[in-house]
Amino acid sequence: MILALSTWPEIEAWLSRCKTVLIPIGSNEQHGPTGLLGTDWLCPEIIAHEAHRRGGDILVAPTFNIGMAQHHLGFPGTISLRPSTFQAAICDWVESLSRHGFERIYFLNGHGGNIASIEAAFSEAYAKYSFAAKSCPFMLKLRSWWKLPGIGSSCDELFPSGHGSHATPSEIAITQSAYPDSIKKAICTPQIAATGPIRDALDYRARFPDGRSPNSQRSRLPVRNPRLIAHSRIDRDAPLSIIGGARAEYHRSSTTNTIAACRPLIRNRSC
Amino acid sequence: MILALSTWPEIEAWLSRCKTVLIPIGSNEQHGPTGLLGTDWLCPEIIAHEAHRRGGDILVAPTFNIGMAQHHLGFPGTISLRPSTFQAAICDWVESLSRHGFERIYFLNGHGGNIASIEAAFSEAYAKYSFAAKSCPFMLKLRSWWKLPGIGSSCDELFPSGHGSHATPSEIAITQSAYPDSIKKAICTPQIAATGPIRDALDYRARFPDGRSPNSQRSRLPVRNPRLIAHSRIDRDAPLSIIGGARAEYHRSSTTNTIAACRPLIRNRSC
Amino acid sequence: MILALSTWPEIEAWLSRCKTVLIPIGSNEQHGPTGLLGTDWLCPEIIAHEAHRRGGDILVAPTFNIGMAQHHLGFPGTISLRPSTFQAAICDWVESLSRHGFERIYFLNGHGGNIASIEAAFSEAYAKYSFAAKSCPFMLKLRSWWKLPGIGSSCDELFPSGHGSHATPSEIAITQSAYPDSIKKAICTPQIAATGPIRDALDYRARFPDGRSPNSQRSRLPVRNPRLIAHSRIDRDAPLSIIGGARAEYHRSSTTNTIAACRPLIRNRSC
Amino acid sequence: MILALSTWPEIEAWLSRCKTVLIPIGSNEQHGPTGLLGTDWLCPEIIAHEAHRRGGDILVAPTFNIGMAQHHLGFPGTISLRPSTFQAAICDWVESLSRHGFERIYFLNGHGGNIASIEAAFSEAYAKYSFAAKSCPFMLKLRSWWKLPGIGSSCDELFPSGHGSHATPSEIAITQSAYPDSIKKAICTPQIAATGPIRDALDYRARFPDGRSPNSQRSRLPVRNPRLIAHSRIDRDAPLSIIGGARAEYHRSSTTNTIAACRPLIRNRSC
Amino acid sequence: MILALSTWPEIEAWLSRCKTVLIPIGSNEQHGPTGLLGTDWLCPEIIAHEAHRRGGDILVAPTFNIGMAQHHLGFPGTISLRPSTFQAAICDWVESLSRHGFERIYFLNGHGGNIASIEAAFSEAYAKYSFAAKSCPFMLKLRSWWKLPGIGSSCDELFPSGHGSHATPSEIAITQSAYPDSIKKAICTPQIAATGPIRDALDYRARFPDGRSPNSQRSRLPVRNPRLIAHSRIDRDAPLSIIGGARAEYHRSSTTNTIAACRPLIRNRSC
Amino acid sequence: MILALSTWPEIEAWLSRCKTVLIPIGSNEQHGPTGLLGTDWLCPEIIAHEAHRRGGDILVAPTFNIGMAQHHLGFPGTISLRPSTFQAAICDWVESLSRHGFERIYFLNGHGGNIASIEAAFSEAYAKYSFAAKSCPFMLKLRSWWKLPGIGSSCDELFPSGHGSHATPSEIAITQSAYPDSIKKAICTPQIAATGPIRDALDYRARFPDGRSPNSQRSRLPVRNPRLIAHSRIDRDAPLSIIGGARAEYHRSSTTNTIAACRPLIRNRSC
Repeated sequence: MILALSTWPEIEAWLSRCKTVLIPIGSNEQHGPTGLLGTDWLCPEIIAHEAHRRGGDILVAPTFNIGMAQHHLGFPGTISLRPSTFQAAICDWVESLSRHGFERIYFLNGHGGNIASIEAAFSEAYAKYSFAAKSCPFMLKLRSWWKLPGIGSSCDELFPSGHGSHATPSEIAITQSAYPDSIKKAICTPQIAATGPIRDALDYRARFPDGRSPNSQRSRLPVRNPRLIAHSRIDRDAPLSIIGGARAEYHRSSTTNTIAACRPLIRNRSC
Repeated sequence: MILALSTWPEIEAWLSRCKTVLIPIGSNEQHGPTGLLGTDWLCPEIIAHEAHRRGGDILVAPTFNIGMAQHHLGFPGTISLRPSTFQAAICDWVESLSRHGFERIYFLNGHGGNIASIEAAFSEAYAKYSFAAKSCPFMLKLRSWWKLPGIGSSCDELFPSGHGSHATPSEIAITQSAYPDSIKKAICTPQIAATGPIRDALDYRARFPDGRSPNSQRSRLPVRNPRLIAHSRIDRDAPLSIIGGARAEYHRSSTTNTIAACRPLIRNRSC
Repeated sequence: MILALSTWPEIEAWLSRCKTVLIPIGSNEQHGPTGLLGTDWLCPEIIAHEAHRRGGDILVAPTFNIGMAQHHLGFPGTISLRPSTFQAAICDWVESLSRHGFERIYFLNGHGGNIASIEAAFSEAYAKYSFAAKSCPFMLKLRSWWKLPGIGSSCDELFPSGHGSHATPSEIAITQSAYPDSIKKAICTPQIAATGPIRDALDYRARFPDGRSPNSQRSRLPVRNPRLIAHSRIDRDAPLSIIGGARAEYHRSSTTNTIAACRPLIRNRSC
Repeated sequence: MILALSTWPEIEAWLSRCKTVLIPIGSNEQHGPTGLLGTDWLCPEIIAHEAHRRGGDILVAPTFNIGMAQHHLGFPGTISLRPSTFQAAICDWVESLSRHGFERIYFLNGHGGNIASIEAAFSEAYAKYSFAAKSCPFMLKLRSWWKLPGIGSSCDELFPSGHGSHATPSEIAITQSAYPDSIKKAICTPQIAATGPIRDALDYRARFPDGRSPNSQRSRLPVRNPRLIAHSRIDRDAPLSIIGGARAEYHRSSTTNTIAACRPLIRNRSC
Repeated sequence: MILALSTWPEIEAWLSRCKTVLIPIGSNEQHGPTGLLGTDWLCPEIIAHEAHRRGGDILVAPTFNIGMAQHHLGFPGTISLRPSTFQAAICDWVESLSRHGFERIYFLNGHGGNIASIEAAFSEAYAKYSFAAKSCPFMLKLRSWWKLPGIGSSCDELFPSGHGSHATPSEIAITQSAYPDSIKKAICTPQIAATGPIRDALDYRARFPDGRSPNSQRSRLPVRNPRLIAHSRIDRDAPLSIIGGARAEYHRSSTTNTIAACRPLIRNRSC
Repeated sequence: MILALSTWPEIEAWLSRCKTVLIPIGSNEQHGPTGLLGTDWLCPEIIAHEAHRRGGDILVAPTFNIGMAQHHLGFPGTISLRPSTFQAAICDWVESLSRHGFERIYFLNGHGGNIASIEAAFSEAYAKYSFAAKSCPFMLKLRSWWKLPGIGSSCDELFPSGHGSHATPSEIAITQSAYPDSIKKAICTPQIAATGPIRDALDYRARFPDGRSPNSQRSRLPVRNPRLIAHSRIDRDAPLSIIGGARAEYHRSSTTNTIAACRPLIRNRSC
């Protein structure tokens, strides 16, 4: 069920049988010469909507599309919140959903740089209750899509070398699968990007001139699929194999709820 | 051009010829028994993406989809930011885009309840420069889609009575046109909702039990098209007549820029 | 009743029969070569105190005298709050008065630039209750004095041309009536100021060199009373005709309260 | 010179010869059965305006009338800012005035409870420059009116017993002198109020039932002038003897400025 | 009892008989050529731990070691919080301890520059309850160690001249007594430092080149013990005579609690 | 070199040859029936000071002793900052040290619950420069002491079972080694604590009644050293084997600096 395409009575009905909601969350930031700026919020959105389309009995909230990308601000098109703003916004989303009775709020994340700030936001949301000695009515769960069951091994198999951690071939492949008209081509030099710590934006751009970064496997693995980095379109269905993981994970976050059988209700692409 | 489906070098190229960017902004909140929760952010997104699809030479940023909806929190599915969070987030978006060289940032708004807070956010963004006695490098523009040229007269013609200001038949029609699989039906009683001031969420729900509100024209106009309120699907193309207005307005906000001729490049539905 | 000139037992007695309080709110900012810096907070203060003096059964709080004037900071004497500070302060005023049992808090505003931020502050104050699913104990009302019943037509009659929206002849006339020793004279060139959008302070001063702005009627109306702009002293009683409107409006904001008959208790000028 | 009754060109002229401005600052809070709610902001306003009226070559900004009065919120009519809001607002005032070139900003204070928060605000304002390793362009000065030269001895002489520190006979006398129509009478029992620490509002009201507090001299001095506590109207000119101190102090805060001779320009009561 | 060296069951047991806790609070800032950077937080920590070691039945929380030192940022090693951060942190400490049932929270302060901000923080902590019309469950007490009973006279006796208010010989002596391996020697010129107001960091360093400041007694008293300023090591036990004062003061802040007899439990130096 | 026991000229001299500073950072929170409340800030302090004592050429700042412990607030003695306060304070520390010229600021952390918030704070500190398109003058490094080289294998060897992640035998052993007079004994049931997610304080206490938590190895490893959990005093020198790692790590964070040879200068226990 797509929350934004539902009415409030439909959400009221959902809440009568399930207290879980999934929020795709990511970032809008440069992803190298061939990756889309929206990659990190498009991926969790694609995965969640596809899980719904394949019959998953899940409720997908609107996508939280701007995250923590201060270090990418040296590249045009990047939009970032300050961590403090980001955390305040997450708390407002959580309090809004908790207000309606949602007890399990699952964030499906698409950006590694968000993780620390999301967890800090969770602590801020919990702290309100901890200081007041009140029982918190909600449970928060963060899961990055690449940590879903089975994804790690798929990525290892598809991209045995040069996968890296930003503008990875697997996330590029997911967006290419969903937006085939937006596949970009470019010559990437070097084929596998440099690696190093992440600091401010000028420092980042100086060390990673085309935006691809940091790639810790450069020295250890042979480069077998360099083309995947430049234009890594893979079979349309391949990345979507992660959908099963997403749906199962979502329901695991819902431990006290009886899940209705998934009806094979395939809808057209929603937002 | 859709920013999220572009790469950073593409945005860098755009900036070499145009300093304007359009941000669809709205709210995710109840819209009565038949309106979608996403109505207020879907409408400006639909309009902006369609303007692009019809060949408009515009750059569309990701949609700012959660706004100021505290008064709707009594209805499940509503997600709201506090005004203070909302304003901080707008300032971060503006500073990110200004960082890249955008000089004209145009917010295409879909929610009346956002207007005051967006304008306050603009003042906050300007104030940073005013206090520092520095020249502000950007100009901010807010336009709600129903204020675009020609929209008012279209709405008057299509919905001569009971148009109201929230969950209006025109905004419902736009979402129905774009998401024909998500058209909802319900019996609305009374056909035209009550009117009154907007305060907190419990007060709102008590006075507007099904969420439709406030409708100031109840007493003055005859009720001619009540069915439009319940399931106001209109001709698919009708609401899109506003696209021309959106595109023209966007370019008016760009006074010092030479606009390249619009190429008739129609793309498939993007995010 | 003037709150600052009363004791707490007197306010306690007031609350036993009326839950409404009026707050004059404005801004301290440049008003061109002849307008007083205090114009925007003096006007609502003058109107409210005069309504009291003429027997109005109203309770007037201290004047909130510094508002949202970041765009005027290029002119000496302007004092502005950041919108975020302004909103926090309004919330504190509201919570203080609500703490005592005031249920209807009416802001009589004197500055157009305050409106968005005041309404955003109202949303912030309400949001506290909306997020908590608690009933809000107060109702907030904003009214700019020029929107009081009868003012628009009076201004049209007195100043058929060049009234504009900042440093208007009507607001200057009100301050001249109350502070006849502080009437200033200057030659204003051009007689009717330019018009345009409002952004940051340096931009404002560059486009409105003497501070008078924006005047949208320049091209449409003949200039009949240019002297009113330069030193528009009008009959002492003229602007005070709006007092009746202020008092009536205040009582309309009080819908559940029986108002005691207004005793003709004229006091000397209070603070 | 009264800033609010001046135009911006007049302030520009003032700045060409003097960089000092005086801000009356106080609080709006209960002052016992006979003290006015506005006492603490009226007193510095009265003193500053009177100093101006008697020919003092000083520039008086609008009065900062709401301060730190959280502990008085148990008494109707009290309006308080949170200390954090209060400090943010002071910083905005200071930055506004510094923006115009004022280098010496003198706060004439009327409320003991403000002192800590004003000094903390000063530190916050300075810290901006200290962290940035930039030279701060302004000097801030806080002076409570009862610390002006000669005031202490006058109070000792007029009120040798039971002067206390809140709702004191001297501050009541000043307001009575300026607002003779607002003199209140009440029987105060006990004649001299209790003493004790200041905490939250409920605690305060429980220990100081009529709002008069804390009076540390109860046990040491004989009660000689009890009537002064109940309705301490004194000779109209007596409290104004402090004006000289205020003016001298203000100029002492201006060490590098040549002061023009004070012209005996007595104006009528301004705001 | 040292809180950090205790377990939570031990604190639970403490709370069953006593609701008071002492927090040493200070600042880490330059103290001239011979004073330690930690002087202002070491002194209250030394005093509190020594009071415990000598058998005082007190509970000592961890030391709040970074305070309000923006004006010392011109000297390497100084670490300062902004006043707003400082106050937020104090509120969090207070709410944490109040959460466990502590009713009397006593801050033993070592830095004059902290006083205003600590008192403002107290007001912020109380205000939460005052605005909510709830009874505050805790009492806050601030005492600078040099205000403890008997300290003033000791300082007068030991350092009859040039004691000053920052980098004083008495605070240096306390740290020398506790950290005899860290006694520094330097030639101080002039022997007694200048005096003047405190503003931002660059201003401070310009007026107090070696960091010693402000010394108001320069002109009035003969310089009898200049060596005390340069390396004022005094008898190891002398400064510790203040311990009795600290312990008594702590218990005076606990007015409703029966104190168990102090057992002479001398422990080794704890953190 | 211990910063708090140094003078500002000594730090100035240090900066002439090294731009690195180490900050021990932790938390003050319950650590089960036998762990000290200060464990998480004592451990990095002990390690850093011992590294200095053994001749390490390092500069150790005061310990940041209160961190992110909202989930432990159900146990007396826990003191926590809200994540937002915590991050603001870290930014102030960083800006203070950067102000003096420190370019590499190394946080030696003792609390897993701090990690997300510290990293979010780093992003906030960097974001200031990234938004301003300025080069950030400092590099921030976070390292938890148990991630230092060689620690993992030592822990595995010493505590092959039941090590867990909170109130671990290794951290208890470190505090016991440094504070042998504060070793606590208690019977822990069960010997190895339960495991589970971390949420608010009431939830935590309900699931981890004695505070020991979460121990993910319960089911996989045999319990070989249960006594270590209850009172795991180990050889005094054992935990200190990590010192070498700490010192090396610190210097690795300093890549452009020539390190003077470590002099074997063993001092007594400093603060």
